[in-house]
Amino acid sequence: MDHITALVELLSEDRVSTNETTLRNHGKDESHHTEALPHAVVFPKSTEEVSGINKIASQYEVPVIPFGLGSSLEGHVIPYQGGITVDFSLMNQIIEIRENDFLVKVQPGITRTQLNKALKQYGLFFPVDPGADATIGGMIATNASGTTSVRYGVMSDQVRNLEVVLADGNIIQTGSLAVKSSSGYHLNSLFVGSEGTLGLFTEITLQVYGIPEYTTAARAVFPTVSQAVDAVVKILQAGIPIARCELVDSYSMKQVNHHSKTNYLEAPTLFVEFHGNEAGLAQDVEFTQEIVYDLGCQEIIFENDSKAAYQLWEARHNLAYAFIHGASGKKLLVTDVCLPISELAGAINNARKTLEEFALVGGIVGHVGDGNFHVLLMVDKNDPKEMELTEKFTEHLVKYAIARGGTCTGEHGVGVGKKKYQRLEHGAAYDVMITIKKALDPKCILNPDKIIDKY
Amino acid sequence: MDHITALVELLSEDRVSTNETTLRNHGKDESHHTEALPHAVVFPKSTEEVSGINKIASQYEVPVIPFGLGSSLEGHVIPYQGGITVDFSLMNQIIEIRENDFLVKVQPGITRTQLNKALKQYGLFFPVDPGADATIGGMIATNASGTTSVRYGVMSDQVRNLEVVLADGNIIQTGSLAVKSSSGYHLNSLFVGSEGTLGLFTEITLQVYGIPEYTTAARAVFPTVSQAVDAVVKILQAGIPIARCELVDSYSMKQVNHHSKTNYLEAPTLFVEFHGNEAGLAQDVEFTQEIVYDLGCQEIIFENDSKAAYQLWEARHNLAYAFIHGASGKKLLVTDVCLPISELAGAINNARKTLEEFALVGGIVGHVGDGNFHVLLMVDKNDPKEMELTEKFTEHLVKYAIARGGTCTGEHGVGVGKKKYQRLEHGAAYDVMITIKKALDPKCILNPDKIIDKY
Ligand SMILES: Cc1cc2nc3c(=O)[nH]c(=O)nc-3n(C[C@H](O)[C@H](O)[C@H](O)COP(=O)(O)OP(=O)(O)OC[C@H]3O[C@@H](n4cnc5c(N)ncnc54)[C@H](O)[C@@H]3O)c2cc1C
Ligand SMILES: Cc1cc2nc3c(=O)[nH]c(=O)nc-3n(C[C@H](O)[C@H](O)[C@H](O)COP(=O)(O)OP(=O)(O)OC[C@H]3O[C@@H](n4cnc5c(N)ncnc54)[C@H](O)[C@@H]3O)c2cc1C
Repeated sequence: MDHITALVELLSEDRVSTNETTLRNHGKDESHHTEALPHAVVFPKSTEEVSGINKIASQYEVPVIPFGLGSSLEGHVIPYQGGITVDFSLMNQIIEIRENDFLVKVQPGITRTQLNKALKQYGLFFPVDPGADATIGGMIATNASGTTSVRYGVMSDQVRNLEVVLADGNIIQTGSLAVKSSSGYHLNSLFVGSEGTLGLFTEITLQVYGIPEYTTAARAVFPTVSQAVDAVVKILQAGIPIARCELVDSYSMKQVNHHSKTNYLEAPTLFVEFHGNEAGLAQDVEFTQEIVYDLGCQEIIFENDSKAAYQLWEARHNLAYAFIHGASGKKLLVTDVCLPISELAGAINNARKTLEEFALVGGIVGHVGDGNFHVLLMVDKNDPKEMELTEKFTEHLVKYAIARGGTCTGEHGVGVGKKKYQRLEHGAAYDVMITIKKALDPKCILNPDKIIDKY
Repeated sequence: MDHITALVELLSEDRVSTNETTLRNHGKDESHHTEALPHAVVFPKSTEEVSGINKIASQYEVPVIPFGLGSSLEGHVIPYQGGITVDFSLMNQIIEIRENDFLVKVQPGITRTQLNKALKQYGLFFPVDPGADATIGGMIATNASGTTSVRYGVMSDQVRNLEVVLADGNIIQTGSLAVKSSSGYHLNSLFVGSEGTLGLFTEITLQVYGIPEYTTAARAVFPTVSQAVDAVVKILQAGIPIARCELVDSYSMKQVNHHSKTNYLEAPTLFVEFHGNEAGLAQDVEFTQEIVYDLGCQEIIFENDSKAAYQLWEARHNLAYAFIHGASGKKLLVTDVCLPISELAGAINNARKTLEEFALVGGIVGHVGDGNFHVLLMVDKNDPKEMELTEKFTEHLVKYAIARGGTCTGEHGVGVGKKKYQRLEHGAAYDVMITIKKALDPKCILNPDKIIDKY
């Protein structure tokens, strides 16, 4: 293929792979979505090289699929139209830490734990923590979030500037280093969450935070999921600046204990954390205790030493892997609706009821402080009946959420899996998205068929 | 003119004005920019009417200029190409308050003080407070901010959903009611700050906040502006979640005293405020006192009763009016650069030095917690020499800021005044903005010549 010859010329042979294993590793994600192979996987080392790759792709009209770690869950990186997968693993450096400005400039291939390791010595941290150790590039492309978003916001809240290589190879800067700006159209947020369909990020300037003076983590155990959710709503309404607030239902607590060798009570549990100064935090904790006990909490266990707190959050982070490892041969299917907080309890109850009606086995977990929850199901891709049923189940949850002002995806993104809900959710705004995509990528080479159908 | 006949048919005669005074009132803003008249001013009452107006404008290819209160400062609302000014004063209702979700849905013509009056009885408030009592529609269109943005963010951080009438009259919803979403492209932030050039907002869903349990306001007086700025940087770096943090230089303090009949010390002053729970706030205040005294603060005066605190912020809010009323016959010219916080002290010193070199008289004030400051100058529009000099001065400040990762406008927006700096600031990204504008408004009828040249 001519474009591969051109790529070899640009990057030399050792950074253009057509090796079967490499292609396979880039032909799937962590979910149930069907695999497909790219023509080649390339490993650029610089912005100029990425620009060169896009120019070749544009010339030969072949797809370009940016690739971070492949941890996404809706088929985002699967090259259903073939083409060139651009793996950013060789672009994983920290370019600059501006500690006085609480800013860091990185290459897209760095992972969140690599970043936090480097920030720690400056007393800084980057809060967004999806369950996988994803790359910053991938997290921006999906507008990822995690356990701390209730306090620190999601990826789009952290991005100060992106260097983006456009479809035609042109290179732009979408923002500045200023905290705020009213200059021109705000392109940062347009590119955040664009899933590789509008451009490839080659440098990223992010806001970071001072490691909080004091931190307290706790587990609050409730008789029912409803009571746990009610407690969250009350905590938020009381204006307590809670830093983390995660729901894990009893079925999922079982998976946690099994996978993480913990012996937590297997009942609906809130994993919470507080950040602040000593006095303020103490008052927040006291007030929170009052609220949760008022709402029927059975016990709240504070993890005061940092090891126990670390174990708590490790267990939470590994939850999806607990499901995956607990059901070998099966694949993960995970819903991701997000609703206004007043609708959350109803939505979770409805999800549990519907699971039972459909006779499906699944766990419910969620970033409930954001109104976001997941139903985790392990599915047998080769069982068409099961796939049809889970598909119906997902559709039910999505329609329920959208009817109440929610969204089909709070954090995982659209990929191919949620594409069918875009019109329902966005109506005529979907046409605006298509217009923008066509204007910026007229040949439809950037991750085609994701979010928007190939044209 | 045929389009006026069509408008009268749509809205009836009493809501289509070609009256000279009405045209004049809609042909200017609060700044030095040259006036120009629209063909007509219309007063819609519903989204459907706005859609009808855009359809007429599109059919006759005449400009449409949305108009809130005309308090913008860069010629945003001035109809340099004539056309139809759409005044939103009859669309100023609160549609819904969802207190449990901390959300409010409003029409665009409501002002920030009207909104806050209605929210107060729910124990809620909307934080963004530009110096003018602007409309929410206008504030979104300029991505306005104010004294509280250091804590609560700017307009784009508050917008959950916009109903937008596009150039062709189509109506879209740009977001949802969920706290976060990874569904489709994020259109909220693209439309925020678009200054009427991409669409007209007809309904707006905003995030609101619980009125803080405790509030403390203070004035900290410093020997020099540099020391005041250094104190701000230190406060931020210490992670103190300060809620307001405004710098007023001695020249401006004089204007404040004169206009607001206060007798504050006429020295560089920080106006600060803390929000929080009782214990946390006390600790924040104590820590802040230590920092400011370490950095040479002469005295810090706490305004403990709410009347004195109210007076403090009223005085700050009326500052620009103090300048305006103190120089009759002259017009306000105000710079608006914003830089990374580590560059702020240098930028303010450079601005003061340059003022002196240019022999200009002006005050320096700023939302320094955001790295944003204004030089306020009262200019004689009819003195070409003075205008040339102030123009050169502004250009110097803008180039200084952009060279250090800053922006030409932190909050006022581009309008016509800052258009000449767009290429310098955004480089190739400006082409992306132009591409988007052309794709969404192919006939260039929406507020033409603002941000982007008419095509
Ligand atoms: C166990 C598990 C738990 C998870 N938990 C969470 C969670 O809590 N919250 C959450 O938000 N997500 C979660 N996810 C999903 C996943 O981690 C995120 O989608 C993540 O953001 C993807 O990052 P990645 O580096 O793996 O990117 P990839 O999967 O490689 O790519 C994701 C998307 O980003 C694009 N992309 C990658 N790099 C670039 C670049 N440089 N420029 C432009 N586009 C690029 C790709 O084309 C693709 O569309 C979880 C996944 C797993 C497997
Ligand atoms: C004394 C003074 C102090 C100020 N202080 C600040 C400050 O601290 N911070 C700050 O950010 N600004 C400040 N400003 C600027 C001004 O208040 C803001 O620009 C404000 O956001 C404009 O609101 P408005 O309702 O007056 O809108 P207008 O001036 O009428 O319009 C502003 C822009 O919004 C567009 N627009 C209006 N309504 C809509 C709609 N419904 N749909 C789409 N577009 C629309 C207009 O076309 C125009 O481009 C100040 C101005 C003055 C005079």
